[in-house]
Amino acid sequence: MEANKDKEVVAFLGPKASYTHQATLSHFPESRYNIVPQTTIEDVYAAVQSGNASHGVVPFENSSNGPVVFTLDLFADVHGRYPDILVCGETYLQVHHCLLGHAVKKQDQPLQANPPWRKLKDEGDSPNPSGQVTPTQTAPAPGKPRVQPLHDIKHIKKLYSHPQAWGQCKLFLSTHLKGTERQDVSSTSRAAELVAQDTAGTSAAISSRIAADLNELDVLAQGIEDSEGNTTRFFIIRRQQDVALPEAEESDNEMTNYKTLVSFTVEHGEPGALARCLAVFEKFDINLTSINPRPSGETLWHYIFLVEFMGKKRAEEAGGAVNDALQGLGKVAKSWRWLGSWKNALKA
Amino acid sequence: MEANKDKEVVAFLGPKASYTHQATLSHFPESRYNIVPQTTIEDVYAAVQSGNASHGVVPFENSSNGPVVFTLDLFADVHGRYPDILVCGETYLQVHHCLLGHAVKKQDQPLQANPPWRKLKDEGDSPNPSGQVTPTQTAPAPGKPRVQPLHDIKHIKKLYSHPQAWGQCKLFLSTHLKGTERQDVSSTSRAAELVAQDTAGTSAAISSRIAADLNELDVLAQGIEDSEGNTTRFFIIRRQQDVALPEAEESDNEMTNYKTLVSFTVEHGEPGALARCLAVFEKFDINLTSINPRPSGETLWHYIFLVEFMGKKRAEEAGGAVNDALQGLGKVAKSWRWLGSWKNALKA
Repeated sequence: MEANKDKEVVAFLGPKASYTHQATLSHFPESRYNIVPQTTIEDVYAAVQSGNASHGVVPFENSSNGPVVFTLDLFADVHGRYPDILVCGETYLQVHHCLLGHAVKKQDQPLQANPPWRKLKDEGDSPNPSGQVTPTQTAPAPGKPRVQPLHDIKHIKKLYSHPQAWGQCKLFLSTHLKGTERQDVSSTSRAAELVAQDTAGTSAAISSRIAADLNELDVLAQGIEDSEGNTTRFFIIRRQQDVALPEAEESDNEMTNYKTLVSFTVEHGEPGALARCLAVFEKFDINLTSINPRPSGETLWHYIFLVEFMGKKRAEEAGGAVNDALQGLGKVAKSWRWLGSWKNALKA
Repeated sequence: MEANKDKEVVAFLGPKASYTHQATLSHFPESRYNIVPQTTIEDVYAAVQSGNASHGVVPFENSSNGPVVFTLDLFADVHGRYPDILVCGETYLQVHHCLLGHAVKKQDQPLQANPPWRKLKDEGDSPNPSGQVTPTQTAPAPGKPRVQPLHDIKHIKKLYSHPQAWGQCKLFLSTHLKGTERQDVSSTSRAAELVAQDTAGTSAAISSRIAADLNELDVLAQGIEDSEGNTTRFFIIRRQQDVALPEAEESDNEMTNYKTLVSFTVEHGEPGALARCLAVFEKFDINLTSINPRPSGETLWHYIFLVEFMGKKRAEEAGGAVNDALQGLGKVAKSWRWLGSWKNALKA
């Protein structure tokens, strides 16, 4: 561990083999950084705020499920605990969920001509041979899951995963594991650990392929997410004092190659207060990419808005569309805070 | 049950004794309505859409935790399953959480001069006598929980509740039940049912006082929510064909006494697209009360916005600010849908 003393510390939402871990490795090679897992998203913020870590990596939103509320609340920072935290980068990770568990060994099954995974193609033998979700009153025209199990999964009595994962694998679960008991756990990696400890072999986890290897579990099905493009966006955070703002315009097109995050509050009960804040971005031809309200913590039903847009804040005196818009925001918002500008990593 | 045939059916998110049940009863007395619990929020929508129920009651947002994402997604209705659903009313419920479980009986404890609930006031005897959260790196200046337990809770090894409840009782939990295993379940009422079945008596539920009576559980602590004003807002939904729009202006002030919900999408990647949609409300002096984006389901990172504002839609030909604004919205949004107008139930 001596060599790690020279390396910058990167805090990420653990445990090992989590999707955040994968996203972190894609950005921070272990040869150059000391990658340290944290228990909660807030622990990542605290590690960066205190200077114990130079960078942090946290999930921000998923393309199917929307924003990660815990992360939004830490940026909203209504208690002022993370005054120096800025976003300094983003990274996108295609999330391929697997069903991990203990495959039923051949000797445990009655003799048969076909291997277990062939059975699933035989009508009448599989609990749901068509791979089609049973139409119900709530879902009269359901879709079809993208994949079939690789192994027999009839022995699975209990499922573990992170709450976000259920919402990303609805079709597979409602087709092949309808009514199976589900237990929420803190991460998909933790789900795999719990299944690895299950000696009866009747539980399964929705988790990653990496977690299968790490926990010596069988991949019972892979790519079970509903949406082929299922992607999670992660933010890389730093302390304000470690981020340099460009003095003047850079050669690259900063209005399409960068994004900026701000938070602001408006005078509650004033018609047009939010619209006036958003209009300052339109005035400078700035495209908003996301807006998320969170309870402000001040008064009931008051909100703090997290708004993300294309463009880059420069040093105060350097001007530019974003600086002008933020100056305008300061005049119409009740309060506001810049939360970072970073290079756009989304391929159009 | 014969008498029920004459009563209108109201579907609500169950089970019995849920907070939604309490909200439902405050609006729909059982003497006049047939109140029927549903398993999921989507089941409530399906019951109303199909006409099996005349009204539905669903949670929409909590003052501490923000919106209920499942409800937002059902209003966003990206698969067009609930084309006739409108909000026709709202009701607010102050949510007082209790810790329910099995109090340790006196004979189970060593003889002592003080009853168990006095013990907690004795320094050195209670696990955390000050009632103060241990300061940690993540929360250097934590708050103090509002209440102390009514009984000894040292025997509690496992907690059950709905995910929303953890976030509403952070201070109590981190002070008195730090590190205790938590299991998410589908409702706070279900949590109480599970604890009632626990013969060992070492589990507890965060649930309502009503659930304590229903399941014959002891109230180990009451009012354990962090925020004194902790409130959940519920929407009452109906079918469009059952809702009459006023032909002309009513005598009450419709711009302050009513609210309206709409959803819309914008042309992605066009600077100012969202600001232009919101500007139409400002133009007609309409105050926005909430805005929530959800993944549109069309393309990655495209959103559908749910916007709520003060005022009331009238019949097409009756004019008025809201009708004018919605006409304006139709010109700037890619698509939009009216989701109901109803009487504002929030006391200012």
